[in-house]
Amino acid sequence: MSRNCFIGQSGGPTVAINASLAGIVARCKEEGYDHIYGMINGIKGLLEDHYIDLGEIFDSSDKITQLKNSPAMYLGSCRFKLPNIILAPGTYEKLFKKFNAMDITDVFYIGGNDSMDTVAKLSTYAKAINSPIRFIGIPKTIDNDLMGTDHTPGFGSAAKYVASSMLEVFYDSAIYKLNAVTIVEIMGRNAGWLTAASALARENGATVPDLIYLPEVPFDTDKFLADIHEKFKEKSSIIIAVSEGIRNKEGNFLDQDSKYTKRDAFGHVLHSGTGKVLESIVYKEFHCKVRSIELNVLQRCAMHIASSTDIEESFQIGEFAVKQAISGETGVMIVVKRLSDTPYQIQCETLDVTKVANLEHKIPVEWINKDHNDITPALHDYLYPLIQGEVHVNYANGIPQYIDISHLRNKMIKE
Amino acid sequence: MSRNCFIGQSGGPTVAINASLAGIVARCKEEGYDHIYGMINGIKGLLEDHYIDLGEIFDSSDKITQLKNSPAMYLGSCRFKLPNIILAPGTYEKLFKKFNAMDITDVFYIGGNDSMDTVAKLSTYAKAINSPIRFIGIPKTIDNDLMGTDHTPGFGSAAKYVASSMLEVFYDSAIYKLNAVTIVEIMGRNAGWLTAASALARENGATVPDLIYLPEVPFDTDKFLADIHEKFKEKSSIIIAVSEGIRNKEGNFLDQDSKYTKRDAFGHVLHSGTGKVLESIVYKEFHCKVRSIELNVLQRCAMHIASSTDIEESFQIGEFAVKQAISGETGVMIVVKRLSDTPYQIQCETLDVTKVANLEHKIPVEWINKDHNDITPALHDYLYPLIQGEVHVNYANGIPQYIDISHLRNKMIKE
Repeated sequence: MSRNCFIGQSGGPTVAINASLAGIVARCKEEGYDHIYGMINGIKGLLEDHYIDLGEIFDSSDKITQLKNSPAMYLGSCRFKLPNIILAPGTYEKLFKKFNAMDITDVFYIGGNDSMDTVAKLSTYAKAINSPIRFIGIPKTIDNDLMGTDHTPGFGSAAKYVASSMLEVFYDSAIYKLNAVTIVEIMGRNAGWLTAASALARENGATVPDLIYLPEVPFDTDKFLADIHEKFKEKSSIIIAVSEGIRNKEGNFLDQDSKYTKRDAFGHVLHSGTGKVLESIVYKEFHCKVRSIELNVLQRCAMHIASSTDIEESFQIGEFAVKQAISGETGVMIVVKRLSDTPYQIQCETLDVTKVANLEHKIPVEWINKDHNDITPALHDYLYPLIQGEVHVNYANGIPQYIDISHLRNKMIKE
Repeated sequence: MSRNCFIGQSGGPTVAINASLAGIVARCKEEGYDHIYGMINGIKGLLEDHYIDLGEIFDSSDKITQLKNSPAMYLGSCRFKLPNIILAPGTYEKLFKKFNAMDITDVFYIGGNDSMDTVAKLSTYAKAINSPIRFIGIPKTIDNDLMGTDHTPGFGSAAKYVASSMLEVFYDSAIYKLNAVTIVEIMGRNAGWLTAASALARENGATVPDLIYLPEVPFDTDKFLADIHEKFKEKSSIIIAVSEGIRNKEGNFLDQDSKYTKRDAFGHVLHSGTGKVLESIVYKEFHCKVRSIELNVLQRCAMHIASSTDIEESFQIGEFAVKQAISGETGVMIVVKRLSDTPYQIQCETLDVTKVANLEHKIPVEWINKDHNDITPALHDYLYPLIQGEVHVNYANGIPQYIDISHLRNKMIKE
């Protein structure tokens, strides 16, 4: 029997998505797949026949290793949501016609919430038409906000970047004794996992972050200023970790709050980000040196400081996905179950993808301290193993050497 | 004869200052110095008797290596400018009384422009009173804007961080084909060296930055928008490197230009940074996805991706400073002379510190392209060797392990 698969990537980038892709390719090769195709720009690209032959390209273990150690998405991405099966069956008919014409046996889709919706719909359609094609979802997101899995591929590396950057900002700010507030804005719109990871900087001597504000609990500006007043009693340089997604008790983001809205000369509202809003709030209260640092996309693309725990797991999850497809599973997402913190042990399992799609996994409130400005030891113990280990990234010409992505320039389709 | 020295650090942090400190300590030990003292918070701390005994603390080569590979400033910093010698001789009398009481033979001062002013004044005073104490300046600044030296310690590492980050941002932004502009704001108020270094991302396959704007030439908003229009004809995702210090032809920073001034609800002017101003200018013209990324202090404290060329040179410069002091030199700054680009070869020399203090070394205009939106091959060849080589940073608990700086908490004096 011939075995042929499609692999796609969708949603925002992380440094671990290519590791899962590498794991799938490696295992498919071991299992003797005839063709391993990669959709360019996910399911959207496939609808326009944009794909490449990964089996041909990755003809050596060195190339697979280079893929594993490269950030972002070798296959490009899409933000396309499949239409309702009943209202728009045409899209599904078109896709399955392609699958059948190419003798596809399995489809692997790596992504976040929306991508799991794609897996759910495709596997549901397959069952409805009695197609034997298996659809497996492989999770990824730096936000760690997917349900049903202990954590998500990509999160541990972003967390390592955040903790290391917090440590380096601590060294940078420790050189003067003057009243100063540094605000580090960290990604995660609704879930504070990454912001919480800044606390791991304390492992190696940093006495910061002094305060941590997470989106899981309402943000109160008066309490925030009182917290800083309190900290200034004991030290002069205060570093604060704050999630981009903190909201007041009415549920508004800070830059939506009219009191702090910035406008340009034409009166247009300018979205400036949580850190910048807090910077101006702190300055008005304390008239001291205030700086905000937005870690921005660097926290999701800094492969050079990735967590090897994360990258190795992401690869294994890819391999496991192939194993499960061969065993006949479909309509599932691969999840990680943690067996123990110390020693850190996990195992891969599968979960009905409909139980995952469109849900959000946030920090349990009992893992946030009573003052709502720090994490608890339980959250520390959860985070700690995920950032362990360093990845050996190749350098050439003084900068990292990642896998060539020039194929994307010609093959990509317009969003 | 007894030999005793003081070492001080001043100005802003880089990842190479401690390497120079380590080089001085290592060489002083080799030369059999009786005491190696470190001023806490530079000359300002010394005036208040804040110092430590570095010879005692650094009693093994392992500790010296850890110091060499740690960011920021082990001795803390100050931004203190010595008063005029004739108008306020008291400060000098106080300092030299300390020096004499402690049998000081040499003072090493690591810093930028203002620190060289300190070295100039102290050596001038010493000559005037016939003191045999030698004063040697050791340069550092990520901005690379000191005169008389091919480049400054700290610059190469910051440049490597900038080039690597530009590469990773390229991978991050390459996943979709949609019209998007990413603006990366890079440090350097009056000198564009660091911004120029973003071009080194091209070495390993990045087709970016697409446009580079430096503070050495006037910034013209209309030309800037025309440049982007032109780029959009050939590609969809445009990445721009811009110096925080670009100014219009009237010499104003962009966030000083009333047309783009942001105000809060109370009408107060908010300084938002060059990247944010350009973000709103681009959005108004193109109504496409626009993002600005401010590399912020990370570019000067990211020891984990330092250039080993930079760190080794900084160490050697520290060693050379001790050698020159012993040979009797004073009132000089250690400079680097480049002998050749390929192979990259340098030698250390000394320069009268009065020829350095209070001057700025900018990019020669002939190293900027005619369109004023990119660098020339000559500038590329100048930059390339400075970012080569990786530093082996120790990791523990998943994050870098730098030298303990807890002594600063108790010893530092208020700015």
